[in-house]
Amino acid sequence: MTQRILTKELPGRIGERVHLRGWMHTLRRMGGVTFLVIRDRCGLAQAVLDDAAPLEGCQPETVLALTGTVCAEPRARGGVELRDVSVEIMSPVREALPFELNKGPLKANLSTFLDHASVGLRHPAKQATFRLASAIIDAYGAWMRAHGFTQITTPKIVGAATEGGANMFGIKYFDRRAYLAQSPQLYKQVMVGVFERVFEIGHAYRAEPHDTARHLNEYLSLDMEMGFIEDHHDVMRVLSEVLRHILGTLAQDHAPDLAMLGARLPDLTDVPVIPFADAQDLLATRYGEAPDQADLSPSQERSLCRWAEAEHGSEWVFVTGYPTAHRPFYTMPDSAQPERSNSFDLLCRGTELVTGGQRIHEYGALRSSLRARGYDEAGFEGYLEAFRYGMPPEGGFAIGSERLLARFLGVENVREVTLFPRDVNRLTP
Amino acid sequence: MTQRILTKELPGRIGERVHLRGWMHTLRRMGGVTFLVIRDRCGLAQAVLDDAAPLEGCQPETVLALTGTVCAEPRARGGVELRDVSVEIMSPVREALPFELNKGPLKANLSTFLDHASVGLRHPAKQATFRLASAIIDAYGAWMRAHGFTQITTPKIVGAATEGGANMFGIKYFDRRAYLAQSPQLYKQVMVGVFERVFEIGHAYRAEPHDTARHLNEYLSLDMEMGFIEDHHDVMRVLSEVLRHILGTLAQDHAPDLAMLGARLPDLTDVPVIPFADAQDLLATRYGEAPDQADLSPSQERSLCRWAEAEHGSEWVFVTGYPTAHRPFYTMPDSAQPERSNSFDLLCRGTELVTGGQRIHEYGALRSSLRARGYDEAGFEGYLEAFRYGMPPEGGFAIGSERLLARFLGVENVREVTLFPRDVNRLTP
Repeated sequence: MTQRILTKELPGRIGERVHLRGWMHTLRRMGGVTFLVIRDRCGLAQAVLDDAAPLEGCQPETVLALTGTVCAEPRARGGVELRDVSVEIMSPVREALPFELNKGPLKANLSTFLDHASVGLRHPAKQATFRLASAIIDAYGAWMRAHGFTQITTPKIVGAATEGGANMFGIKYFDRRAYLAQSPQLYKQVMVGVFERVFEIGHAYRAEPHDTARHLNEYLSLDMEMGFIEDHHDVMRVLSEVLRHILGTLAQDHAPDLAMLGARLPDLTDVPVIPFADAQDLLATRYGEAPDQADLSPSQERSLCRWAEAEHGSEWVFVTGYPTAHRPFYTMPDSAQPERSNSFDLLCRGTELVTGGQRIHEYGALRSSLRARGYDEAGFEGYLEAFRYGMPPEGGFAIGSERLLARFLGVENVREVTLFPRDVNRLTP
Repeated sequence: MTQRILTKELPGRIGERVHLRGWMHTLRRMGGVTFLVIRDRCGLAQAVLDDAAPLEGCQPETVLALTGTVCAEPRARGGVELRDVSVEIMSPVREALPFELNKGPLKANLSTFLDHASVGLRHPAKQATFRLASAIIDAYGAWMRAHGFTQITTPKIVGAATEGGANMFGIKYFDRRAYLAQSPQLYKQVMVGVFERVFEIGHAYRAEPHDTARHLNEYLSLDMEMGFIEDHHDVMRVLSEVLRHILGTLAQDHAPDLAMLGARLPDLTDVPVIPFADAQDLLATRYGEAPDQADLSPSQERSLCRWAEAEHGSEWVFVTGYPTAHRPFYTMPDSAQPERSNSFDLLCRGTELVTGGQRIHEYGALRSSLRARGYDEAGFEGYLEAFRYGMPPEGGFAIGSERLLARFLGVENVREVTLFPRDVNRLTP
């Protein structure tokens, strides 16, 4: 058998007889000849068939093997096309696709698309989207490793609904009850005692029954936690740096995918920082937003991003100093104003993408915080042990990877950037 | 504040006044002076204290900041020590540890260790173990990306117990029943239609109630799937290459960790390949093993590894051609002998580490296989759609990452190489 080559190798093989394999992307008859475009994992290539009879009855997505001669052809993609072609059908497709994959932008609505994601994901725009998703994970891990972080894998099956059970999925675990972890929070904090700097790329689960454009019940969380910080500003600096690295990698290595999707990445240089209380004042005065004592509402998030864009030319904005009472028990209070906390959110293009902050690292203070909130310390034994035996000042963050990609691409619904999303109505495919 | 440096930077700073932060690893009084060993994420360093009074009552693992002068000292670790030291206590530890972390090999038994993993993982041997776990993931992903594979993230919450429900954990998913995926098998196969070559690093779940040294109920699976193969031998070649890359990376970048653990990596050069039926004959004749028509028993696996070592000088052995009837429905039968399949397992040092093979890619044949095994096609709609619309010949494998590391390190129990293992009896920490 001739060695298969990839479509991207064609420009270097002019004059040679080569063997390609891939999917029939399009088949067009023009005059006496037939133009076949074949798709493989690297892209598309054109082949000119003198006789299309062997492909009679074959629908797009038929898997083909082509043998032909590479010829220069300025009007074809990549400046080359295959001529004098023999075609072998590897897997025929006899039925029409649920929607077209080969005619410009995808026209299926989201629900139809998701019902047929198994084949719809082959659309070039979808391929581009999920290549970018893969690249984000890779760039995140690469930066973390280069800066002394160790990758960890922590359990997603947990014994107790430790962070507040309302939003957790229950599991029947043999004769016991268990839950799906809503974050690796407690584990990554424990691991600061082991490696100082850790990161995790793993699923997180929220049993929220809300069907919104920005929530998934299963999502991929890019987590990190680091010791020996001064306060949450150190964590924010690391976050800015890793995001800049991700953005730079996408811009440099994935320009064609970004161009295909018409995506303009949000520049991250000097990100404005605004305390929560100041943001509330500003939003009320300037945008007439109703104040919220606990958190930013989605509408407030959008207005604050408009402010950051208008006043600072930034598509990103950090909000710090969230009310301690409305953040989790492990949140470090601001020593000067304990009702505010050393916490932050990072917003981009109207949505919160990252949550983080400094944590309470002193054993006694952590126990007090648990008790003050009515938790039973017994459920936190393994967690507390790490603090009982020496924990430095520490903090971290969690990035929702699907939300991040959605903001980068400017798509409204996070389901568009999730391979097989899980929501209150969807468990398949 | 003086900029913190890391212990590994000390040899380049002789004569300078520096600032270190870390955990009190040991504190020993000898004659009039006190030797303090501090541990940070890079290792250990010795400091000589003229006055140990500030550390009175502090137990090991107390978090410290040291300022001192770096002096050459041939008898100290790295040839340097810190003198003229001032000590600041960042987080004091007042209680004795559940077991010693600073006196050579860990002495706690496995159960005690796991109960106190939150602090026990700080033992240098445990740090080394989980640095290697992190390195395996990294090397696996790097090789895959370099060879045209795209990383995917597929759901772990699935709607139907598609691969055989007995071993799946049930979840209450709002008003429905769902399950934890026992593998990404069906999704990675679907994704071959999108990217040809995909890999995933993610959790897999098995509700097996057996408490053995080699099973976990939640484990990290290193998966891949690739299209346009000839047969399972292509998959086996890729597997050998990625494993060689992982072994090479560990040997090159992690020699100190391997040395600390007394680990000798298994050389992977020419791996013998033996068909299942031949293996059964051999095992019966040579080792008196009772034949098994379905699979290799654990005892047979050990004997077969002894054979591979004795006859081929290999700590690895491929077994191919498992009985089709005892492999999953998607397994490609051997065209010459359909009762045997184009499947394989890879064994190392007495245990199966990897399962893989060629899959049925032809739509009609796949439906027939489902029906022949009594499955309801309706539960496979999304999966089948990918094959209905053109799938090339394809195959893949799944490596159990914890088992792999256990074999590399020669440890008996897979729980020793899992940060926070989940088994039938253990849900904490």
